[in-house]
Amino acid sequence: MTLPSTMNALILKQDGFAPSREGAAIETLEPYLDYGSLPVPKAGPGQVLVRVRMASVNPSDLYFIKGEYGQPRVKGQPAGFEGVGDVVGGQGLYARWLKGKRVAFVGGVTGSGAWAEYIVVPAAMCVVIRQGMRDEDAAGHVVNPVTAWAMFDIVKQSGAKSFVFTAAFSQLGKLMAGLARDNGYAMIAVIRKESQAEHLKELGASHVLLSTDPDFASRLAALCGSEKPRILLDAVASQQSADIFMAMPNRARWIIYGRLATEAPAISEPGQFIFMDKKIEGFWLSQWFRRASMLEKMRTLRAVQNRFISGAWKTEVVATVKLGQAIQALPEALKLGDGKVMIVP
Amino acid sequence: MTLPSTMNALILKQDGFAPSREGAAIETLEPYLDYGSLPVPKAGPGQVLVRVRMASVNPSDLYFIKGEYGQPRVKGQPAGFEGVGDVVGGQGLYARWLKGKRVAFVGGVTGSGAWAEYIVVPAAMCVVIRQGMRDEDAAGHVVNPVTAWAMFDIVKQSGAKSFVFTAAFSQLGKLMAGLARDNGYAMIAVIRKESQAEHLKELGASHVLLSTDPDFASRLAALCGSEKPRILLDAVASQQSADIFMAMPNRARWIIYGRLATEAPAISEPGQFIFMDKKIEGFWLSQWFRRASMLEKMRTLRAVQNRFISGAWKTEVVATVKLGQAIQALPEALKLGDGKVMIVP
Repeated sequence: MTLPSTMNALILKQDGFAPSREGAAIETLEPYLDYGSLPVPKAGPGQVLVRVRMASVNPSDLYFIKGEYGQPRVKGQPAGFEGVGDVVGGQGLYARWLKGKRVAFVGGVTGSGAWAEYIVVPAAMCVVIRQGMRDEDAAGHVVNPVTAWAMFDIVKQSGAKSFVFTAAFSQLGKLMAGLARDNGYAMIAVIRKESQAEHLKELGASHVLLSTDPDFASRLAALCGSEKPRILLDAVASQQSADIFMAMPNRARWIIYGRLATEAPAISEPGQFIFMDKKIEGFWLSQWFRRASMLEKMRTLRAVQNRFISGAWKTEVVATVKLGQAIQALPEALKLGDGKVMIVP
Repeated sequence: MTLPSTMNALILKQDGFAPSREGAAIETLEPYLDYGSLPVPKAGPGQVLVRVRMASVNPSDLYFIKGEYGQPRVKGQPAGFEGVGDVVGGQGLYARWLKGKRVAFVGGVTGSGAWAEYIVVPAAMCVVIRQGMRDEDAAGHVVNPVTAWAMFDIVKQSGAKSFVFTAAFSQLGKLMAGLARDNGYAMIAVIRKESQAEHLKELGASHVLLSTDPDFASRLAALCGSEKPRILLDAVASQQSADIFMAMPNRARWIIYGRLATEAPAISEPGQFIFMDKKIEGFWLSQWFRRASMLEKMRTLRAVQNRFISGAWKTEVVATVKLGQAIQALPEALKLGDGKVMIVP
């Protein structure tokens, strides 16, 4: 098969970080991305070239293109962290073994991105996808599912059979709900719309709290008393997040993995760090990948794939957008909410 | 020697916790304490009766009598956590061995307190004081020095050769300054009065920042760049504390061990927990005592005593107040600031 020399891609228009932070909401992509043509990237040693089948759109992608993520943008490079595709070339033994295989990948190599026809990724960051797993599940195979798995490990190590999860109707929240139920843990899910409650309970959440409920505080206090959760998994970092943390029992840990809110949450009772042994910390999948052993990573990826193949997990896709139409169509697709948006070349 | 049946003491007038928090500042003791007479307490199994020579006044005592500490008040009991005295009785082998010896102690046994002529404490919580150590040093032998030692361990484990310390002209801050210098660490001390700077540098602080300096932020930023401190030891929990934490480099930990401020500090950049791997946690000496091994405790207490006897540490006493005059004199003595206040029977 002959590879083309150029490809289409969604290309970053800006460098570095944004001077201020707005959050993941995007009204228009025009300040951030161009649809254009780039040379097909070349795989270096230990890397593979993948023809992209489908790329996922994660909140981290949106933060990144806006310059609000933990790594700087590089103007002229394609956006997009995660997807699924077919290995069409590569350098090295393992890379050659991967050739012809369908793989899920996470990008991040300089010069490459998943919102393109081709991407170069380290062979070690590819996961061979077994038959029976849909492209829709494989495209979002790593970021959300591995995050869910790693976070659930934190919950299991907390010693409590319960945890609190905010913005729980996210893709990640839905994955966590299934993990919680299947392992006998009570997920206390905080949601933003009443209409999300029933589906999230079906997926496995034990308790659902509406963040705008006037009785939110007293309902939460009752659940903290009965379920005694120690872990707050939070993508919002709002004042309500801080208040939930303050309401939780001794040894509670507020684990922030995203920042949907733009406010600066205030800690009303700093004495709780001293006398109640509470902690605030963060979770970043990139760090987890750096720190986890190879065995831990392989086990996690296998477990994740098994859950998708068995049907215990299923990626809910609300829109699939063509690469060439994404500049116009993606902001609208993201407003559909409550499910994943995919990009296909 | 015959023991009397009654003794004088400063007795708690209130039970439990205060409904709101004001901090450690005390204008008058009258709402909280009575000077009166109580039966001399009886030592139970494994306990000793100590005739108090001198008791120290720690911030934790002031928080406690105001009902703002991590343990509830019990009306009718003497106040006071820490002091030095002579063992005059006790039950058990070790207690009998202690009889006649001068010991430092930390209270906390139901029914007993150090702001009294006699106190009952567990024999295991007594530290025999060697000759050559002054009562002034022995009376504050445990709370501040052991806290300093345990906190300095946290600094050593952080991997950075520097740390930030707020309200640094406290007794604890002075002890930390000496530990820092003697071990080759740079203490970045935040103080509230210009007049404190020189003495703190003499004691061992490498850098002194005045909290009210208009250039505070830029000076701190420069020091964070050059010294790369990872630990913020903080007794204030103010907005400035939060801002210092935000200015610190990757992997910074904000360790709160007191709450002199009454405001609710806001976290301006929660993304730092994720992308910079920062953490907020607490330190409480009671927890340290529960978690540390017996060997670790003995080593720490020996090291502390050696530092006092060698003169590397010296307790700076600004006032010594008689038990019978404390209700009137203690609030005034506490305003003298910048040194320790002691109570003697």
